[in-house]
Amino acid sequence: MEKYTAIFHIDELSKWKLLLGNVSNLLIAIGNEDILLEVLANSEAVKYYDKNLKLDIDINIMEKLHKKGVKFVACNNALRAYKIEKINIMNFVSIVPAGVLELVERQKEGYAYIKP
Amino acid sequence: MEKYTAIFHIDELSKWKLLLGNVSNLLIAIGNEDILLEVLANSEAVKYYDKNLKLDIDINIMEKLHKKGVKFVACNNALRAYKIEKINIMNFVSIVPAGVLELVERQKEGYAYIKP
Amino acid sequence: MEKYTAIFHIDELSKWKLLLGNVSNLLIAIGNEDILLEVLANSEAVKYYDKNLKLDIDINIMEKLHKKGVKFVACNNALRAYKIEKINIMNFVSIVPAGVLELVERQKEGYAYIKP
Repeated sequence: MEKYTAIFHIDELSKWKLLLGNVSNLLIAIGNEDILLEVLANSEAVKYYDKNLKLDIDINIMEKLHKKGVKFVACNNALRAYKIEKINIMNFVSIVPAGVLELVERQKEGYAYIKP
Repeated sequence: MEKYTAIFHIDELSKWKLLLGNVSNLLIAIGNEDILLEVLANSEAVKYYDKNLKLDIDINIMEKLHKKGVKFVACNNALRAYKIEKINIMNFVSIVPAGVLELVERQKEGYAYIKP
Repeated sequence: MEKYTAIFHIDELSKWKLLLGNVSNLLIAIGNEDILLEVLANSEAVKYYDKNLKLDIDINIMEKLHKKGVKFVACNNALRAYKIEKINIMNFVSIVPAGVLELVERQKEGYAYIKP
């Protein structure tokens, strides 16, 4: 069992920079201790995962966080609503059928919830 | 004991559409499993419950969600602050004295917290 | 063990008035029961703690809440990012190295999370 577990929730495109900073700071603060971190994006925030939209994305930070074990997740309801093709999404992003259910299930498992 | 329990928190009027979509998606994802969902509105978000304000409200979706067991709750501190009469509130909305206390108590009972 | 424990998260300067109202209402609703309340500010919200910025701060309400046991906390990563000197911060504010870790640890201890 990991010592720390947390799920970050993002549903606004404008909050990605803040969120990635929060996640980075958390990893630095925790150091080498066991941790499971997940970033769950739903609503318009999933656009950030679309390589074709050419948003001002800090892919380097995301890849670095992913390599450190951070799980990036997209809500499939949101992908459909914004007509985003799975093939255009960054390859390290997982897809769940419903983002809100992911938020409920992780908290049930004891994950802390953080909404930047 | 229900398998899933979650409380949605809303304090901004502009977030109602997003919130109702989230709640609908959660019910669809869970199907017929046991679930207890609550929507807690405080601050300006309670205006959405006021039938007289004639906001662009999707009362059909709200009634449908209510019939599926979703509990809509208003904070009485907020109703007083915005001078909203109880008689003008949709009849399926419950009132609690303090919305923040509701958020604390439900989480104490194990409800997941979601802020769209 | 306190009956109620909750951590309020704030990362937007514009939400302070709403947050302080929420905390006040919670204390009124709970009355004399055991409670532990913490306000965790990170990102730009820490500017509110800086006496020198002369923001429109309701220091009286904050001091009153502090005297009733509310713990005001600042994220040191945010203080550094906004170049806020510790000497300029209100004297009742505590500093933690990483605000997000505080949010994770308090929830692990059973604190409810509220983001106004």
